[in-house]
Amino acid sequence: MELNKIVEMQIKMDESHGFPVHFPTIQEKYRQLTKDLVGLFGEIGEFSNIVKKVNIKLDRPNEYPFELPEAENHLKEELVDSLIYIIRIGAILGIDLQAETLEKMRKNESRYAQLRRN
Amino acid sequence: MELNKIVEMQIKMDESHGFPVHFPTIQEKYRQLTKDLVGLFGEIGEFSNIVKKVNIKLDRPNEYPFELPEAENHLKEELVDSLIYIIRIGAILGIDLQAETLEKMRKNESRYAQLRRN
Amino acid sequence: MELNKIVEMQIKMDESHGFPVHFPTIQEKYRQLTKDLVGLFGEIGEFSNIVKKVNIKLDRPNEYPFELPEAENHLKEELVDSLIYIIRIGAILGIDLQAETLEKMRKNESRYAQLRRN
Amino acid sequence: MELNKIVEMQIKMDESHGFPVHFPTIQEKYRQLTKDLVGLFGEIGEFSNIVKKVNIKLDRPNEYPFELPEAENHLKEELVDSLIYIIRIGAILGIDLQAETLEKMRKNESRYAQLRRN
Repeated sequence: MELNKIVEMQIKMDESHGFPVHFPTIQEKYRQLTKDLVGLFGEIGEFSNIVKKVNIKLDRPNEYPFELPEAENHLKEELVDSLIYIIRIGAILGIDLQAETLEKMRKNESRYAQLRRN
Repeated sequence: MELNKIVEMQIKMDESHGFPVHFPTIQEKYRQLTKDLVGLFGEIGEFSNIVKKVNIKLDRPNEYPFELPEAENHLKEELVDSLIYIIRIGAILGIDLQAETLEKMRKNESRYAQLRRN
Repeated sequence: MELNKIVEMQIKMDESHGFPVHFPTIQEKYRQLTKDLVGLFGEIGEFSNIVKKVNIKLDRPNEYPFELPEAENHLKEELVDSLIYIIRIGAILGIDLQAETLEKMRKNESRYAQLRRN
Repeated sequence: MELNKIVEMQIKMDESHGFPVHFPTIQEKYRQLTKDLVGLFGEIGEFSNIVKKVNIKLDRPNEYPFELPEAENHLKEELVDSLIYIIRIGAILGIDLQAETLEKMRKNESRYAQLRRN
């Protein structure tokens, strides 16, 4: 599915749940954006906590009970939750996330051209 | 463009720059994932620094020199850079980001059904 | 208690639990520092998740079940856990955290002198 | 210097610069706390960006120009800035940071007793 279509679906759902992305004043816009940024920190923090545990498990395999396949399932969920917050924050900012991402990828391609190995 | 296609393009570019997403051992996989997670923190931190300044400007409009349109351009760039790290981390984990995002959106739709206002 | 004494106690305890702060190579030093940075992120993420919930509760007092005193207890714990990671990361870097903090406070005092209101 | 004394000095300075830590309503308290959490994130993000560069330099010593001693000076500054935000957020929450940290260290000592190696 087009990234833009995913964004559109997510925003429509957020709005129907009482979480708008358009605001009458710039104060309200940044108040909500700041809250959603904290939400994004929360998701990346949950992701980080799982990575921390995987790393301890890899360093101390015998001391530390931990199921890697289950951890990877949780990592997947937290990463997707982080992406959903990024979509939401982009919509509050009025960004065309798909166009901007493609544009940045083109810029990176030129910028890192000297690193290219193939 | 399909989210999956964007992911594929990004990963191909990363690999050509010497930043692989496939690793021979789980130790190397998580070593790189941990580094890329730190890269993601860096991008979200840059985004946060701009949001911080916008918030100070909105609280103290006369005391603090600051150009909002320029700030919003930077926010756009940092958000896209964050998305690119999420794409990269998802590829290291072997996640189908598009399918998983759509799946999570369906789950959220049921989960928050009681909040629906229209 | 002196901040330096708290640091010393924390590091001694970490070392007795098999989490050293001194490493034979710079590679190992930064490998551990990178892992502890992910740990710090996890704690700040947990803190952020509670702040997120407090904010939703304040916006929607009737819709959302939530106990503020309990939330503030958790915030306290997560903040202290974050501080402990900062102490640990500082020790890995070999920083005199107390001296450096006092030095930075002096710098900030000059830097923000024009904001002083009393 | 006592951690509590450092906290007291920092808060007095913040207040004189127009950044209070006491608020007439819980809404205003959490609005400021949320903004300072974004500020903390910014500092940890700057710290992370430097760690990212150190890691790339260690992986690719010949490809990447980078001065480690200078990087470590920046890391020191960003870590101290992060600590100052933690002090500030603790004051907004009304936490006795010194007492709570010592209390948490005592709890961790019991909790991780089975890991003790000496």
